[in-house]
Amino acid sequence: MPTITFLPDGLKTQVDIESTLLEASREASIQLPAICGGRGICGKCRVRTVKGNLTPPTEAENMHLDGLLSSGFRLACQARILGDATVYIQDRASLTKQKLAILGFEPNVDTKPGIFKVYIEVEKPRLKNVKSYESVVREALLNRGIDASSFSLEALRKLPRALKEGGFKITVTIDEGEVIDVDKGDTSDTLYGVAIDLGSTKIAVFVVDLLTGETIYGDGAINPQVVYGEDIVSRISYILEADENLEKLRVAAVEAINNLVSEIYVKLNIDPNSIYKVSLVGNTAMHHIFYGIDPTSLVYSPYPAVSVSPIRVKASTLGLKVNRSAYIYSPPNIAGFVGADAVADILASRIHESDELTLLLDIGTNTEIILGDKHLLLCCSAASGPAFEGMQIRYGMKAVEGAIERVRIFDGGFRVDYSTIGSTKPRGICGSGIIDAIAEMFRTGMIDSRGMIEAYTGNPRVKYTSSGREFVLAWSEETAINEDIVISQRDIREIQKAKAAIETGWLLLLKHYGASVEDLSKILVAGAFGTYIDPESAKTIGLLPDIPSDRIVFLGNTAGSGARLILKNVDEMMKAVDIAKSVRYVEIAIDPDFHRIYFSSLGIPYTEVRGSKSFK
Amino acid sequence: MPTITFLPDGLKTQVDIESTLLEASREASIQLPAICGGRGICGKCRVRTVKGNLTPPTEAENMHLDGLLSSGFRLACQARILGDATVYIQDRASLTKQKLAILGFEPNVDTKPGIFKVYIEVEKPRLKNVKSYESVVREALLNRGIDASSFSLEALRKLPRALKEGGFKITVTIDEGEVIDVDKGDTSDTLYGVAIDLGSTKIAVFVVDLLTGETIYGDGAINPQVVYGEDIVSRISYILEADENLEKLRVAAVEAINNLVSEIYVKLNIDPNSIYKVSLVGNTAMHHIFYGIDPTSLVYSPYPAVSVSPIRVKASTLGLKVNRSAYIYSPPNIAGFVGADAVADILASRIHESDELTLLLDIGTNTEIILGDKHLLLCCSAASGPAFEGMQIRYGMKAVEGAIERVRIFDGGFRVDYSTIGSTKPRGICGSGIIDAIAEMFRTGMIDSRGMIEAYTGNPRVKYTSSGREFVLAWSEETAINEDIVISQRDIREIQKAKAAIETGWLLLLKHYGASVEDLSKILVAGAFGTYIDPESAKTIGLLPDIPSDRIVFLGNTAGSGARLILKNVDEMMKAVDIAKSVRYVEIAIDPDFHRIYFSSLGIPYTEVRGSKSFK
Repeated sequence: MPTITFLPDGLKTQVDIESTLLEASREASIQLPAICGGRGICGKCRVRTVKGNLTPPTEAENMHLDGLLSSGFRLACQARILGDATVYIQDRASLTKQKLAILGFEPNVDTKPGIFKVYIEVEKPRLKNVKSYESVVREALLNRGIDASSFSLEALRKLPRALKEGGFKITVTIDEGEVIDVDKGDTSDTLYGVAIDLGSTKIAVFVVDLLTGETIYGDGAINPQVVYGEDIVSRISYILEADENLEKLRVAAVEAINNLVSEIYVKLNIDPNSIYKVSLVGNTAMHHIFYGIDPTSLVYSPYPAVSVSPIRVKASTLGLKVNRSAYIYSPPNIAGFVGADAVADILASRIHESDELTLLLDIGTNTEIILGDKHLLLCCSAASGPAFEGMQIRYGMKAVEGAIERVRIFDGGFRVDYSTIGSTKPRGICGSGIIDAIAEMFRTGMIDSRGMIEAYTGNPRVKYTSSGREFVLAWSEETAINEDIVISQRDIREIQKAKAAIETGWLLLLKHYGASVEDLSKILVAGAFGTYIDPESAKTIGLLPDIPSDRIVFLGNTAGSGARLILKNVDEMMKAVDIAKSVRYVEIAIDPDFHRIYFSSLGIPYTEVRGSKSFK
Repeated sequence: MPTITFLPDGLKTQVDIESTLLEASREASIQLPAICGGRGICGKCRVRTVKGNLTPPTEAENMHLDGLLSSGFRLACQARILGDATVYIQDRASLTKQKLAILGFEPNVDTKPGIFKVYIEVEKPRLKNVKSYESVVREALLNRGIDASSFSLEALRKLPRALKEGGFKITVTIDEGEVIDVDKGDTSDTLYGVAIDLGSTKIAVFVVDLLTGETIYGDGAINPQVVYGEDIVSRISYILEADENLEKLRVAAVEAINNLVSEIYVKLNIDPNSIYKVSLVGNTAMHHIFYGIDPTSLVYSPYPAVSVSPIRVKASTLGLKVNRSAYIYSPPNIAGFVGADAVADILASRIHESDELTLLLDIGTNTEIILGDKHLLLCCSAASGPAFEGMQIRYGMKAVEGAIERVRIFDGGFRVDYSTIGSTKPRGICGSGIIDAIAEMFRTGMIDSRGMIEAYTGNPRVKYTSSGREFVLAWSEETAINEDIVISQRDIREIQKAKAAIETGWLLLLKHYGASVEDLSKILVAGAFGTYIDPESAKTIGLLPDIPSDRIVFLGNTAGSGARLILKNVDEMMKAVDIAKSVRYVEIAIDPDFHRIYFSSLGIPYTEVRGSKSFK
């Protein structure tokens, strides 16, 4: 049976001869969009053949792929398999069907990567005045006004061959004053960097042209560590099981990154060897695991991080397949649950330079909360849990096709309007939809401020079951699953707990800062999740402080933006180090007000001091 | 058949049960001293059993090894093999039978290795004031007045376990301000360094206690690269044959060093993990090969070196089995044929600090010649060839047992006195013996100043053969080989060429310096070979300038001494870098006087301007 490999993720499957690529993709659990049901009509199941033996293009393909066939594009529903083949799924959204808010807000900075290339023509050593190869290169550099402090061993190893094959015309790569690489001939027009946002669930990589500072590519993949545990605690449990497991997790992440890097070659024809600088951010656990640092202290009180220093090591020592002399940089972590990714968030959001009191939230399973301005920054971490990602919610699902992402309730709760990702029949509800639903239920009186679903409303959408009350968002006949999609009392409870954790975080940071909600000039919401939530709904349930929505800004994946800033400009790395040093971590769990505020925050929006929320 | 392994070289052989260890050693081509012929009388064939199954000690062993039997010592001629065994040959001289002048002159310097250990008790992180592990270690160090600039990734990786297992009592190793290692508990009493002199033929390693500065151990082995070529040119030819051959040679040297390091563990019980610093010197070719730098430029005119910078890299990246965080240091090379070993020679000899005009020679296949004082140092390299090592000499041999090492000729050439290494019957003649022989033949008129053996002397020691005249040093009945051991006309020619190369070198350096032999205050002879030559004979043939012998000093292996100095004191490394920068390399081959002086130097002692040798 022929083997079909699906790039970029490298999923493999074996199928019968003459199966279609669409059938093979389903075999490999890849959901290609095939709206027409695989009849060659919608043209959405487009893939690109990297190599392999397929049937010739059909009429349907000629129509849909006019001009693209020569580049290897095919419709997966039309192309039948005659032998082993490798195909590339062009549209990552098709692969994961998950909304990846890849590019976040990024302030403009100069391109100053601390690394540069220079093409030089080197004087050949002569018997009259014998100089070493290293010396003649140094002299040629000095003639260009460049005083290289040292040569890396790698560069020395490559030097003789580069000089010989290049006829003493070479390109020298200099990183922070050190010659780290030499190439024969003139390669000074290619100098790339890769920024990595290593999330617990997703890995995003960005290619930055270090000559122009331009981000020319972004891509993402699922963090394969999820196989060893969905969340950080379960991954650390896995690490505790056996000495070699830390390395297993580390290698899983490295390989996933290497796969993404190899795609860069496939897609942009950028040789991994021309990637000379790498930056990586992640939460403290992801950071530690990636660098092979045991993160188990993060699950035992008081949850100390191991390392809170910037890292600069050769990327090749970690197994990254980029230029052997490239360094990888990570900004410092702040604390056990506020990592280098939070530093990147701050860096990209510029609150460390702001005159205005700003609240920054990066909402996820663990939510990082930062409050302050250029004078003082406080941060804390909230264990918000995975409810906003659809976990522990009866009909919860990730933000993929078929998820209800917007909900509006009218007529006192009797009518529900919703929209789904991909505009298909609903299969469940994702985080932004759940927040909308609860906010709308509260607004229309379907739940009270304790989150209890009101009884005796005469509303057929309120159902009574053995496990409690439920509110029907979509009747079974409207859904793709032939079941009512409901919000249960228990679901509401989960969301209350999640939002209470976050609300308690920013309330206590306000207290420590000595400010009230009214003092807030701006709220910045970072992270992919935040991008899709409705600010009004978020304020209604108390997830976000109640300030005018025009002062709430969604920044997208600023962790990735911070990683790109660090890659692009050495001063940004220094700023990141300063940020990490200056941000004050607040251990909210030991605040004497923590429990009172947390229980009050369970209410919708906040049941104790509604309207004021001040601790000034 | 049982397998016997001989340490330190790891030679293995299989022999019948009940063979003696002596028989096994011969099977493995190891020459153990057994003067009595293996009858248990001389007690010289002493070895130490590391493990294995041997017959119980005999009466002879009880007598010779009183008190040593319990430490595993045995006589190889007595102990019979009952099963697999590993034995250690204690006396290296027994193994190679080659005189290894391991420890050379070494000036006293302070112990200032730039690396130190400190035992600290670290505050446990508390919830009230959570700090990272790194921070609490930094604070404990600051309390001791130590401001560590950074942590290596290796140290961070080891930190959590060390803290946990040590109950927050750990030992921190700091190298040039960077925390490079952490251990649980107090290991601050062990801090070792290894200095390596990587010669083309021999590798010497020294263990220095970096707490006291004391050299506690020295050992040597044959450089296994000899398998790929006796001299540098043939090794480079091998490298040119295939891309992977450079790495093969590199790994051969690394493995030989690792074997010597593993012996340190066997002999001194010093864990390789407590070796935190390594230094290495060698000629430019050995240096380049060791670091994986292609040395092929060294065999093509104008013979440029690739690297002339100091090297500091992690020893583990090269495959050395020492502490994973240890750095290896090499001083710079000066030129293609004046390497880091010559820098080490200068450093140890202190001519760079001398007020007196000094000539330093390190005589070998390639002879490094340095002339100068604290104001100016000139150097050159002379292609002296392997004649002084006994190669290309009919009865030439290395300085091992049975080699004639001293010759005196009396009675106008009729009587010859000689002594051999080990005082055995002669088997051949080594370098110091050849120099003696030729000087004595010249002194007694057996050869003229052109090096021609005189005819018509009526001396039966002058023989006439189809290949020319010969002078008999030892009659067949005196020798161990049942042949006359002679010096042939051709041998004399080889020695003339070798000494002329060296003489031309120092004569031209004197010219470039603007000095004459009379201006020389001192001659320093470095290297193992030099240690055994007779200064009077060396002056007679013109190998050394004619100054009073009390101003000729033999320093032994100063390359090794320089390596130890660099290991022991960071200022010495800086001095070595300064030396390499300031020494002026003279390409003598392009001097207009080169050919004239070379041909004159072929004479004994110098036939053109005898007595003056001045170019002032």
